Amino acid sequence: MTDAPMRDAKAFDDVIAAIAFNADGLVPAIAQAEGTGEVLMMAWMNRDAVLETLETGRVCYWSRSRGGLWRKGETSGQVQRLKDFRIDCDGDTLLLIVEQDGVACHTGRRSCFFRSVRGEALETNQEVQTDPSVLYGHGHKH
Amino acid sequence: MTDAPMRDAKAFDDVIAAIAFNADGLVPAIAQAEGTGEVLMMAWMNRDAVLETLETGRVCYWSRSRGGLWRKGETSGQVQRLKDFRIDCDGDTLLLIVEQDGVACHTGRRSCFFRSVRGEALETNQEVQTDPSVLYGHGHKH
Repeated sequence: MTDAPMRDAKAFDDVIAAIAFNADGLVPAIAQAEGTGEVLMMAWMNRDAVLETLETGRVCYWSRSRGGLWRKGETSGQVQRLKDFRIDCDGDTLLLIVEQDGVACHTGRRSCFFRSVRGEALETNQEVQTDPSVLYGHGHKH
Repeated sequence: MTDAPMRDAKAFDDVIAAIAFNADGLVPAIAQAEGTGEVLMMAWMNRDAVLETLETGRVCYWSRSRGGLWRKGETSGQVQRLKDFRIDCDGDTLLLIVEQDGVACHTGRRSCFFRSVRGEALETNQEVQTDPSVLYGHGHKH
């Protein structure tokens, strides 16, 4: 008996070996909505986040600000279900095709990329879909 | 008279101020094809690459391996024309909507994300569209 995790470390060996994690052990992961093709967000994954995502089919990132695994939707309820997991030519970026529950952005917008350059300034290109107080307010079920 | 660049440094001040460049002065930029919505590639930009892209309408990255500006297509001819320049909620990732001439990937595939996890291994999800020797071979016009 050991305290080692139950995870079968060999299950995704070839996938892990194909990923070029950076000096901090992280790799950027782009989330794209299945069907519509919207680019929803970009966040970071470490090895454990990659493995958990592949094993569970529910997207898990690494939160650089909190320094821990970030199971997308665990606070907001806006879960991402993995539909395809892609790796780029040099292995240093991931593309996740996901089914997004509700909105991806903490501002309540569908995508985090809601500002566009117009002329020489930034303009909002998307409306708020869900009030953030609903996503993060009291009484929310985790 | 000075040796300062001719660029009007104030033209995109608000855009530059909204971008959270990392400690190396870089920001990741995702290129997505206009129309089809394909995610083509992810690369990095510094301040000068952002300004050149916005000023010229032709996408210019920062090559970390070469340590210089990388005008996409200057060797391969596979230019990206900027259609929209988007910034995410916390300013640390860019999304470029582009018109891609030919292929984005140096392997001759349309997108760099041509490997998908199937079962526990990686499989190719896209065929080569243009032989790389055509893109990078002798006699190519820059």
